[in-house]
Amino acid sequence: MNFAIQNKRILVTQADEFMGPAICTFLQEQGAIVLKQSGAITSPEAPKNLIAECGEIDILIANLALPAPSTRVQEVEEDEWKTVFDALVHPLPRLVRAVLPQMMERRSGKIIVIGSASALRGINRASTYSAARGAQLSYVQAIGVELAAHNIQVNAIAQNFVDNPTYFPTETQANPRFQERLKREVPLGRLVAAHEDAALVAYLCSDAAHCFVGQVFPLAGGWVIR
Amino acid sequence: MNFAIQNKRILVTQADEFMGPAICTFLQEQGAIVLKQSGAITSPEAPKNLIAECGEIDILIANLALPAPSTRVQEVEEDEWKTVFDALVHPLPRLVRAVLPQMMERRSGKIIVIGSASALRGINRASTYSAARGAQLSYVQAIGVELAAHNIQVNAIAQNFVDNPTYFPTETQANPRFQERLKREVPLGRLVAAHEDAALVAYLCSDAAHCFVGQVFPLAGGWVIR
Amino acid sequence: MNFAIQNKRILVTQADEFMGPAICTFLQEQGAIVLKQSGAITSPEAPKNLIAECGEIDILIANLALPAPSTRVQEVEEDEWKTVFDALVHPLPRLVRAVLPQMMERRSGKIIVIGSASALRGINRASTYSAARGAQLSYVQAIGVELAAHNIQVNAIAQNFVDNPTYFPTETQANPRFQERLKREVPLGRLVAAHEDAALVAYLCSDAAHCFVGQVFPLAGGWVIR
Amino acid sequence: MNFAIQNKRILVTQADEFMGPAICTFLQEQGAIVLKQSGAITSPEAPKNLIAECGEIDILIANLALPAPSTRVQEVEEDEWKTVFDALVHPLPRLVRAVLPQMMERRSGKIIVIGSASALRGINRASTYSAARGAQLSYVQAIGVELAAHNIQVNAIAQNFVDNPTYFPTETQANPRFQERLKREVPLGRLVAAHEDAALVAYLCSDAAHCFVGQVFPLAGGWVIR
Repeated sequence: MNFAIQNKRILVTQADEFMGPAICTFLQEQGAIVLKQSGAITSPEAPKNLIAECGEIDILIANLALPAPSTRVQEVEEDEWKTVFDALVHPLPRLVRAVLPQMMERRSGKIIVIGSASALRGINRASTYSAARGAQLSYVQAIGVELAAHNIQVNAIAQNFVDNPTYFPTETQANPRFQERLKREVPLGRLVAAHEDAALVAYLCSDAAHCFVGQVFPLAGGWVIR
Repeated sequence: MNFAIQNKRILVTQADEFMGPAICTFLQEQGAIVLKQSGAITSPEAPKNLIAECGEIDILIANLALPAPSTRVQEVEEDEWKTVFDALVHPLPRLVRAVLPQMMERRSGKIIVIGSASALRGINRASTYSAARGAQLSYVQAIGVELAAHNIQVNAIAQNFVDNPTYFPTETQANPRFQERLKREVPLGRLVAAHEDAALVAYLCSDAAHCFVGQVFPLAGGWVIR
Repeated sequence: MNFAIQNKRILVTQADEFMGPAICTFLQEQGAIVLKQSGAITSPEAPKNLIAECGEIDILIANLALPAPSTRVQEVEEDEWKTVFDALVHPLPRLVRAVLPQMMERRSGKIIVIGSASALRGINRASTYSAARGAQLSYVQAIGVELAAHNIQVNAIAQNFVDNPTYFPTETQANPRFQERLKREVPLGRLVAAHEDAALVAYLCSDAAHCFVGQVFPLAGGWVIR
Repeated sequence: MNFAIQNKRILVTQADEFMGPAICTFLQEQGAIVLKQSGAITSPEAPKNLIAECGEIDILIANLALPAPSTRVQEVEEDEWKTVFDALVHPLPRLVRAVLPQMMERRSGKIIVIGSASALRGINRASTYSAARGAQLSYVQAIGVELAAHNIQVNAIAQNFVDNPTYFPTETQANPRFQERLKREVPLGRLVAAHEDAALVAYLCSDAAHCFVGQVFPLAGGWVIR
């Protein structure tokens, strides 16, 4: 059946961070061959070298993350902006450029960007992070349209309120004020589970999802739906 | 694994039309128990009777359709408007009202509306149809938020350029001008296959998709992405 | 200067309700000739007769409203659904049909629908109302695209949290819980003033806004931005 | 009347490029005091110095532009990416940071970003540009929400198919293939005029537009409406 992802070779970046662990576990359980990259991937040459080492890659999961700064807009400094764009934005075209030749040659491939709903709806003290995540989503929309003709599908998830240690550590989740906020702001009334996020990734990895190109899938418990 | 829908009791309305056949076949192949309703469902009492006959329903797939009129806006008549709303809009709250009591009692259930991307992007000579499809999507968004607290997930697909005999008959597809239009207007470069549509439905039926509430999933080969 | 609307003949429906009073006052202050229709406009013949009586109409402002029911989704009855659609949805194509011949003949005209942001974002206990408002917005998008070729511009405002006696009576506004909700849910931190809404209408009435077709303008203090 | 912008001190960046000339002319005609910055603004210190020279600024119009590269996604090089982000993205937070202190102190101010609809809908061979424009829009949404509490309104225009010498030079406009594409892809059937764009800017500069925060206004002849 066409949800199958057995034996697909899937590269997951920053596999130990953000959604990396949940995605890797889930994809492996479904029989995929998961290639894991660890650590930040900020140097300009890193993506090329990484892809060269991996051999054939059917699917690239661009899981880029860093702890989001919580700075008032007037207090954001050059350094924060640079650090965030270096981690979330600039590696993306490098990864895409590095993986495209083999996908184009095979006329087959998928790229999934684990993005953020903060690019779609404003949040206080998240201007740098939102901007960087916005660059990701618009990039995906553009290359998704362009690469469709090569039978390469590029899409993104725009998530928020998904259970993950990078953005919602245990202490935060245990905080009654956070729990109240969740009830009030998130129609789902709870965090999206990490395995639910991973399941959406798995679905998008499958042949059943050949039909999506340049699309952004909000996954935020109803906090954002477009 | 949680994409499984085996033994889920799924009611599909207008099972012989629009996406009905493709959805029923696909869900049955995945092991679901598919309950099929045939024909228009316009009488106000029909939904209540239908649901009563079906017994337990885990998931309702509101697949409402009629041949879309192609009328210039100034030539739309009362009759067209009434016919389209009677077929696409008014049955929806009746179906929801009829199926909710059992879902609320079990604190579990899903409703998926097979809607149209024409509600999200304007098309010539489709004003009545677009309006009716717009009512569906906004209804889904509203009840999706409200019913989340009952552990009932309501979502919609907003499709266009999906292969189905109701809207894209064989003659249309064979027409070179249509094929050219497809290349030009639809980034995917082809119609979405009926089984791809059905696969999205199956994913949304699964426990893996408990996390979506009141959301609209565009499925239109990139013609609409939000 | 091209924001001018002096001597434009503008028909405002339900001029005593919803945004009617604020819009009429503002447009008159700007020198427009405002034609006011009063009361519900539910009979199928009413729009045709109304337009016939008005003579030349440069701009139609479809300000349709009724007190929004606040019913749980499972308790909505046939009657509520019919009443709301009779008031908000069905009059719209009748008004459009009645006014189009003269606009098409002159190859000039504008139609502005005062719609609701509840069509864009789900709210509890507002399913009927949201559905009806959704039909309006999708209708506007469709006819906006189609009528552009006739040099007729059709657009809508999708508002919420705008000061008006129909939806936010003085008692509600005085309620501290409402004021708190406003601070929490509406980035603007206050209701949008009625004259701000009217100013957007006036802008859209002006020749400066010839460039918008089939577009929906959210006006909700940031509660909805798309 | 509250569309008035007489005597408002408005800074327009890159005043000789992109929408600069049209905006400056229009705002001056409406009686505003227009402060013009010329040339690229890529050095990190430039914004601070610029703002210091300008004295009081009521409204900042961030009109950032460069000729958009037209590169296939797989051929984009480090240099292109850096150049585009240096011109369109990084100056934005610097300008905001430089102008905010005086606006916060006066508890009054507006910032309008002249952005692009390419951030909202994918285009071939525009990946770098789209990504950069996406960063702008998401940044505006975020700071718009945050700065609303300071009575500072930040919004953006997301334009495409607007007549301007940077993106639609005379030769392009004269090309019959371009004219055909315009008819086919842009519901408006023509380019949006530069003065229509400037009029939207003027409206957003006026006190009548105090009600918008963190909002993106598509202006693309119907090519994008959300």
